[in-house]
Amino acid sequence: MPRYDAQGLVTGIVIDAQTKAVLMVAFMDAEAVARTRETGLAHFHSRSRGKLWLKGETSGHFLKVREILVDCDQDALVMLVEPQGPACHTGATSCFYRRLVDDKLERIES
Amino acid sequence: MPRYDAQGLVTGIVIDAQTKAVLMVAFMDAEAVARTRETGLAHFHSRSRGKLWLKGETSGHFLKVREILVDCDQDALVMLVEPQGPACHTGATSCFYRRLVDDKLERIES
Repeated sequence: MPRYDAQGLVTGIVIDAQTKAVLMVAFMDAEAVARTRETGLAHFHSRSRGKLWLKGETSGHFLKVREILVDCDQDALVMLVEPQGPACHTGATSCFYRRLVDDKLERIES
Repeated sequence: MPRYDAQGLVTGIVIDAQTKAVLMVAFMDAEAVARTRETGLAHFHSRSRGKLWLKGETSGHFLKVREILVDCDQDALVMLVEPQGPACHTGATSCFYRRLVDDKLERIES
């Protein structure tokens, strides 16, 4: 049902179902969408590695998908999740742990 | 400061600063990021039209940007905004007004 772009991708936005915080964003191809729906765990497509990526595969910090929302033109998905640990590989709760102030990145609590 | 991909783009996610709802997502190039920061109004890059796009240009439904968050690898921005009307061109508050249930899109309140 999603409409994939020329690279075969849609944008996948991960939101904490409880806190509503934006946890991360990554790209999904048809395989990642299918595997996410089959398993209930967020999967993505790594553009740098060119392959399927199960979030939490190495860290154990899986994202349990509770609901998937689709946007008007069907090229972006919002996944409401129950995170099984910090979403960011840096250990931060969310990948968005900095704000842009003037020309600096300022760390915020996460 | 953002790290643009091979197409010169980063992902721009728009969140209502008050309700925390995800309103829309679109791509931004360096020009869109610069114009957004200069004007305080969300600008994007339209991939289909290949040009800068000021959200609200025709509808008047501008998105006033209150804060910009940057993710760990600096290829995605979260804009916390004060929307000046429905964010979606369909008239819905958010572009994410449907949920995926089995193989159907189910309308949710927005």
